[in-house]
Amino acid sequence: MGLFTRDIKTMDDLFVHQLQDIYYAEMQLVKALPKMASKATDKQLKDGFLTHLEETRTHVKRLEEVFKMCGTEVKAVNCPAIDGIIAETEEVAGEVADKSVLDAALINAGQAAEHYEIVRYGSLIAWARQLGKNDCASILQKTLDEERTTDRKLTSLAEGKINLRAAS
Amino acid sequence: MGLFTRDIKTMDDLFVHQLQDIYYAEMQLVKALPKMASKATDKQLKDGFLTHLEETRTHVKRLEEVFKMCGTEVKAVNCPAIDGIIAETEEVAGEVADKSVLDAALINAGQAAEHYEIVRYGSLIAWARQLGKNDCASILQKTLDEERTTDRKLTSLAEGKINLRAAS
Repeated sequence: MGLFTRDIKTMDDLFVHQLQDIYYAEMQLVKALPKMASKATDKQLKDGFLTHLEETRTHVKRLEEVFKMCGTEVKAVNCPAIDGIIAETEEVAGEVADKSVLDAALINAGQAAEHYEIVRYGSLIAWARQLGKNDCASILQKTLDEERTTDRKLTSLAEGKINLRAAS
Repeated sequence: MGLFTRDIKTMDDLFVHQLQDIYYAEMQLVKALPKMASKATDKQLKDGFLTHLEETRTHVKRLEEVFKMCGTEVKAVNCPAIDGIIAETEEVAGEVADKSVLDAALINAGQAAEHYEIVRYGSLIAWARQLGKNDCASILQKTLDEERTTDRKLTSLAEGKINLRAAS
């Protein structure tokens, strides 16, 4: 969809546009997560990023399934928000000298990405239900549940040991 | 702090860097919220953005107070994440032809900004407590509570009427 062409005329169009946006975001995260895992020092954090990488690959496939269920082309549109979140992650990671502090910064970065996705999937599911696309909503709900679980795991890892180690 | 200079050596440095990042984000939102309010059609949504604008101005002042409590200069650093979220809001808003659909898109955009802040304030509060800065944590908690309330209000507005109207 082009800028200022006002191509989004209906809620269905907005739903598809948001699918294309989160599809781009998930694909960027497939590229970013291995880098985040390689920078992490704590083994549990490193493994957590790699586990979420596998989940993210499944999220991409689920979105492709939803595109097909809507009878629309599988397509990505640029998503400046996720680009910004990833750019900020790389910027901060490049500035941190201490490995334990870097782990704390990486958790914070991971949670920014998770919350971005939580908002977008939350809206997609609400819109799908409103549009009577309950089959799409069910698939998207599986991904939303996994994003929320990942966010909770990151909080628990931060509060359980990473922040303590970083501050000591 | 410069790129690749590895200026963040301690958790205290990371805390201050994150304060500078969210300070920039809040100031960008002070500029973005009046535009979002002017684009909203639903009166409750428009008023909601304007109320949150006033809260956001208070968040900026609270951050200035926290900078002072830490004995550090009040300063902003670029935050590509919030720039991306705002750019995406303007991009999508420019593409939506229908006013009710635009309201649904604006709620989604507002929630992306809220969740970005929820993550950053959540980390700042956890780090402040770890660093023994309980006075800073208490001030930041007030803002986090307001961001969460705004997010819940937006969800309730979307599910209560905006999505229904947009899909009809």
